[in-house]
Amino acid sequence: MDRKLTPYVRRAQFYETDQMGVVHHSNYVRWFEEARVDFLDKIGMGYDKIEAEGIHSPVLSVVCRYRQPVRFNEKVIIIPRLKFFNGIKMTISYRILDADTGMLRSEGETQHCFINRDFKMVSLKKDYKHIYELFKAWTDYVIDES
Amino acid sequence: MDRKLTPYVRRAQFYETDQMGVVHHSNYVRWFEEARVDFLDKIGMGYDKIEAEGIHSPVLSVVCRYRQPVRFNEKVIIIPRLKFFNGIKMTISYRILDADTGMLRSEGETQHCFINRDFKMVSLKKDYKHIYELFKAWTDYVIDES
Amino acid sequence: MDRKLTPYVRRAQFYETDQMGVVHHSNYVRWFEEARVDFLDKIGMGYDKIEAEGIHSPVLSVVCRYRQPVRFNEKVIIIPRLKFFNGIKMTISYRILDADTGMLRSEGETQHCFINRDFKMVSLKKDYKHIYELFKAWTDYVIDES
Amino acid sequence: MDRKLTPYVRRAQFYETDQMGVVHHSNYVRWFEEARVDFLDKIGMGYDKIEAEGIHSPVLSVVCRYRQPVRFNEKVIIIPRLKFFNGIKMTISYRILDADTGMLRSEGETQHCFINRDFKMVSLKKDYKHIYELFKAWTDYVIDES
Repeated sequence: MDRKLTPYVRRAQFYETDQMGVVHHSNYVRWFEEARVDFLDKIGMGYDKIEAEGIHSPVLSVVCRYRQPVRFNEKVIIIPRLKFFNGIKMTISYRILDADTGMLRSEGETQHCFINRDFKMVSLKKDYKHIYELFKAWTDYVIDES
Repeated sequence: MDRKLTPYVRRAQFYETDQMGVVHHSNYVRWFEEARVDFLDKIGMGYDKIEAEGIHSPVLSVVCRYRQPVRFNEKVIIIPRLKFFNGIKMTISYRILDADTGMLRSEGETQHCFINRDFKMVSLKKDYKHIYELFKAWTDYVIDES
Repeated sequence: MDRKLTPYVRRAQFYETDQMGVVHHSNYVRWFEEARVDFLDKIGMGYDKIEAEGIHSPVLSVVCRYRQPVRFNEKVIIIPRLKFFNGIKMTISYRILDADTGMLRSEGETQHCFINRDFKMVSLKKDYKHIYELFKAWTDYVIDES
Repeated sequence: MDRKLTPYVRRAQFYETDQMGVVHHSNYVRWFEEARVDFLDKIGMGYDKIEAEGIHSPVLSVVCRYRQPVRFNEKVIIIPRLKFFNGIKMTISYRILDADTGMLRSEGETQHCFINRDFKMVSLKKDYKHIYELFKAWTDYVIDES
C-alpha cells in the first residue's frame, strides 16, 4: 500500500483575519477540520463513508499552539497525522506550515472517539474491523512535505 | 394584544472584526438571523415551536446595505420588522443602529418561504391558520427604539 | 490580452453547515469574497497590489439569492463577473454552481466603491488610471466554465 | 475591593450549529474570547484600555475539552477565571455551563503573553505596574454562579 499523501493546501481568507491584521486564532481549529476531512477522504474513509457505516467521530478535545501568525492570502500547508489510534480513541495531530518557507505557523491536536447512530461509543476493532484495519495502517504514514 | 417589543441588543465581538478594523460584512447576515430568532421567540413562535409544527422557514434571499462600520465592542440595536407576509412568503427587514447614538450602521432584508417536513412549500393561511394569524398580527408591530 | 480565466473552485466545509444539514446562508457572502479575491489576483490587481496603491474597495451592499442548498464536501465553482465599473463604483456578480452538475446553487452581487488612505472616495479614472484601464478591460471577460 | 462578578451569559445561535445539530466545536474558542473580553471589561481593564496603553495580549495556545453538546438557542453561562498570572504570562480558564441546569458543557484554557507596539514581549510587573496590580488582584476572584 502506498502510504504517501499529498498535503492539504489552502489560502488564508480575508474574512478569517481580525483587527490585529492576522488570521483569528479560532480559525485554525477549522483548518484542522478541513485537513482532517481531506486526509480521511484521501485514505478512502471520508466522512460520507464513515457516516454510511453509521459511525460518527466527534471531537473530544482540541489544542492549538500558535507560533507565528498567518496573514491574509498567505498559502499554508496543513499536515495531519494519525498520532494515536486503538479503535476506541484517536488522536490526530496537525502542523500548519507556510507554503513558501515551510516555517511552522501553528500546531495542535484533536482527540476523537467513535459513536454509532444511538450515540453509544463503539470499538472499531470489535465491530468495524475493516475501518479499524484501514486507520491502523495509516498511523505511520509519510506525507510528502516537499 | 401588546405589540410593543424590546429590541435585540448585542456587542460586536473581536472575532467578528477583519483586518480593516471593522466588523466583517458577512457577519451582518448572521446578526439579522440573531434578531429574527429573537423576534420570533418574543412573539411566541420561536424556531422550536415552528419546528415542532413541522415547519421550516428557509432564507430565499438576503440583501444588506452597509452604511457605517461597526467596531469591536460597540453595542448595536437590531430592529427586525415583518415587512411583508401573506402566509406563503415573508419579508423581514432589519435596521442595525448604534446603541449609543442611534445612528444607522446597516440595513437589509431577508425573504422566506415555509416548507413542511417533505420540503414542500406550504401556505400557512391554509394549513397552519394559528401561525398565520399570529404572524399577520405582527406585520405592523411597533418596536421600542428609545 | 487573454481574458479567459479559470474559475474559482472550493469544497463546502463541515463547519460551514448548519443544523438543517446544508451550508449556512451567511457563508455564501464569504464565498463571494473568496472568488472576488481570486479574480482580482488573477487579473493582476490583487488586494495586496490595490492596497500597496493606497486603495481599498469596501463592500457597499451585498445581495444573495439561494437556489439550491450546497451540502458538506460538495465541490462548487464560483464565477465572479465585473458587471459594472465606472472607476467610482463597481458591481461584481457571482454565480455558484455545483462543480459536478453545473447546476446553479446561488447567485448574487456585491457593490463597491474605492477609498484612499484618508477614507475619501476616489475616482480610479482620474487618479489611478492604470487600475482603471485594467478593471475596464475585464468588464467583459469570459470565464471558462467547462 | 469587591471581587464578585456577574457571569457572562449568551445563547447558542443557529449559525453556530453544524449538521450534527449541535454547536460546532470551533465556536467554543470564540465563546472563550467573548467571556474574556467581558471579564476584562468588568474588572476595568477592557481591550480598549489595554490597547490605549499600547499593550496587546495575543493568544499563545488554546485547549478545549467538550463534555456535552450545546444546542441551538440554549442559554449558557461562561465563567472565566484568571488561573495564572505573573505579569509576563497569563492563563485564563473557562467553564461553559448550561444556564438552566448548571451542567458542564465544555471547559478550556487560553494562554497569553503581553506585547507592546513593537511586538516585543513585556513584563507588566516591570513596565505597567498598575495593570499588573489589577490583574494580580483578580487572580482569585469569586464569580457568582447562582
